[in-house]
Amino acid sequence: MANRLKEDLVEAGKIGREPERRVEQYDHLEPERGVNRLACTEANRKLRDYAVMRMKEAGLEVKIDKIGNIFARKEGIKTSTGSIMCGSHLDSVPNGGQFDGCLGVFGAIEAIRRMTEDSFDNERPVEVVVFTGEEGPAFGMSLLGSSALVGKINMAEALGKNNTAGQTLDEALREINYKGDFTRTLEDVEYMVELHIEQGPVLHKENIPIGIVENIAGITWLMVTIKGEGNHAGTTPMKMRKDALVTASEIVSFVNRRANEIVDKLGSVTVGTVGKLNVFPNGTNSIPAKVEMGIDIRDVVKENMDSLKSEVVKFINGLGGKYGVDAEIQMPPLHFPTPLSAEVVNIIEQSAKQVGIQTKRMNSGAGHDSQNMAEKVKTGMIFVPSVNGISHSPMEWTEWEDIETGVHVLTQTLKNLSKT
Amino acid sequence: MANRLKEDLVEAGKIGREPERRVEQYDHLEPERGVNRLACTEANRKLRDYAVMRMKEAGLEVKIDKIGNIFARKEGIKTSTGSIMCGSHLDSVPNGGQFDGCLGVFGAIEAIRRMTEDSFDNERPVEVVVFTGEEGPAFGMSLLGSSALVGKINMAEALGKNNTAGQTLDEALREINYKGDFTRTLEDVEYMVELHIEQGPVLHKENIPIGIVENIAGITWLMVTIKGEGNHAGTTPMKMRKDALVTASEIVSFVNRRANEIVDKLGSVTVGTVGKLNVFPNGTNSIPAKVEMGIDIRDVVKENMDSLKSEVVKFINGLGGKYGVDAEIQMPPLHFPTPLSAEVVNIIEQSAKQVGIQTKRMNSGAGHDSQNMAEKVKTGMIFVPSVNGISHSPMEWTEWEDIETGVHVLTQTLKNLSKT
Repeated sequence: MANRLKEDLVEAGKIGREPERRVEQYDHLEPERGVNRLACTEANRKLRDYAVMRMKEAGLEVKIDKIGNIFARKEGIKTSTGSIMCGSHLDSVPNGGQFDGCLGVFGAIEAIRRMTEDSFDNERPVEVVVFTGEEGPAFGMSLLGSSALVGKINMAEALGKNNTAGQTLDEALREINYKGDFTRTLEDVEYMVELHIEQGPVLHKENIPIGIVENIAGITWLMVTIKGEGNHAGTTPMKMRKDALVTASEIVSFVNRRANEIVDKLGSVTVGTVGKLNVFPNGTNSIPAKVEMGIDIRDVVKENMDSLKSEVVKFINGLGGKYGVDAEIQMPPLHFPTPLSAEVVNIIEQSAKQVGIQTKRMNSGAGHDSQNMAEKVKTGMIFVPSVNGISHSPMEWTEWEDIETGVHVLTQTLKNLSKT
Repeated sequence: MANRLKEDLVEAGKIGREPERRVEQYDHLEPERGVNRLACTEANRKLRDYAVMRMKEAGLEVKIDKIGNIFARKEGIKTSTGSIMCGSHLDSVPNGGQFDGCLGVFGAIEAIRRMTEDSFDNERPVEVVVFTGEEGPAFGMSLLGSSALVGKINMAEALGKNNTAGQTLDEALREINYKGDFTRTLEDVEYMVELHIEQGPVLHKENIPIGIVENIAGITWLMVTIKGEGNHAGTTPMKMRKDALVTASEIVSFVNRRANEIVDKLGSVTVGTVGKLNVFPNGTNSIPAKVEMGIDIRDVVKENMDSLKSEVVKFINGLGGKYGVDAEIQMPPLHFPTPLSAEVVNIIEQSAKQVGIQTKRMNSGAGHDSQNMAEKVKTGMIFVPSVNGISHSPMEWTEWEDIETGVHVLTQTLKNLSKT
């Protein structure tokens, strides 16, 4: 593989890791030592600076927009419209892995370097894009930069979001010197391609090097609070209890059982998870008075997602009578399932075939900036395998040969797309 | 009722409450404003000083032993042996209520004041006792003072226990000026009586003013760690999961269901509770990698407790295969069920009858210093109703008329016991 891309990813992986160190092999990973590069932090700035340096070395013209999205352009020889965007993000979750986002950015830079070295003349412009704030933890909303770019959220609202330090996104961008004045519309953009790690186990388990994303799953969250009656675990007879955790446990079991049953029945990609659960007061000898839980339901078919959600809501509302508890359910705005461009899916598939690489059409269970871009331009995503399906974790890993395969297919895809 | 005892309890209830305030009515309670009087803190010292002042005013001779237990003695007119001890503790859990422990101490002082005012001559000595560190949170072990007194733990080991500030109990006692040099053996002690709030809902629900404790339940704790596989909730298909929380939820349901079934079948007082449950990493979009849970099982019949414990352990060990998780179970030393003295139970019952008060024989699901004392001397406990069964909480309450009834029965019991 090109040592150049590996070097970029390993260098990038040092930034925001304490203590700073190079991680070049899976068995060098350490569970507590991931990267911390939340949007618009000092570590995020360092990585942006590194990427911009590489973009400029590759001969690209770099512009920054008002929300800190970076655009690095190689002009087309035949037209200056109908551009292809290609990229991802450089921010991370807390204690995250070194490939999520970075692969898409440095992979895009590498693809353009290869096109140049191959003396391939792209007819359309190709533009590396870095979206600001793809991950939610920093400013309480994910996909910030792409949401502003496609106009799903207005710029002033996006820039007014606060981080946990109480800084607005606008202030944080100025502090890291990535508050630009470029205004990028998407009128002259035709395609978007994002190379990304799968973040799931499918490609790794099936030993297939490339996934081509057909749909990005929709996401519904249910934030549930169960209020029972706290009391002494030793002195309160079984028949006089209103145990919030006993109630919550039935919900956990129900979500898991029903999601499994739906998958069995429909062969769907439905997932249902209770990932978060807090017990109050949380003492071994105290009957739980209150439980807060976060339920995550996803599917690429909106009807499946909605139907599981309704079943869960109905089940929760039915438990009050049985256990004498109160249940409150809050539903943050959901993400609709997003189909990606069939044209781009086909071109990626053909491109892989041209270079002799096996592929699998699949869905993305995780959210990506591409789901926003897909609302405005023809968008595709290329997945490479995640070892054991792990991501958002220091143990996130993709084998170097799979990285190489990914950028190989990406390069060929960009070449094919760039023809007018 | 005697305003004197109410005044003592309300004054005591100010100490360790921030901001300091008198709470004389149930509807003045505030959920976040309980008392904080962990063993050997400054607030604990203030309350000890207040109690010692009252003991001296009542004409009692006060001595402090090496672990800070307080003994306040009224001599008998006929004998100086075969003493009756009567008391409880003055420390609290964090954010606790104003009656737990205090009632037993100030109730005992009040009973002796009444005996004196009635010109009742006790033939045996009567001694108010205050045990150090009844509650576990301060020094990581409950019933410290009584354990040392009865010799279940040696004095040096007890004094070497550390609090969260890293102080030993010995140092903390010296700091609050309650490191005594008195050595109290129990050779000359015949009885122990403790007046306490029920801390459960039975008396309040059944509207009975006095409970007479026949047994103190045994306690078994199972500290369980379930290790599954953490992963992205959106990208990991249902069939490829090892969800630690789905596993843990089955355990919560099992413990609750089996404890209920045992109660139904045996008519026993068995309780089984999962009071503590921590999820890692605890993000709505993360499949739980690990769950730590604390299970509390109690019964006054050791066989029932052991049998539920065995069932739960077997159930947990059987889940690994089903969910692909690992389960580790730790068992801290258990407390055996403790029967109290049938002789004292009878005397309390007769004493209540003499003064026209209805009683109910019952068990204690909570632990008390009396369970240690019962190993060495004939011991009884008198319970008064807890409103809604709540304790270890700022919402802990007992009606003043029930307090009066409790001390009335206690006084009569001490009078009857004090005859040789």
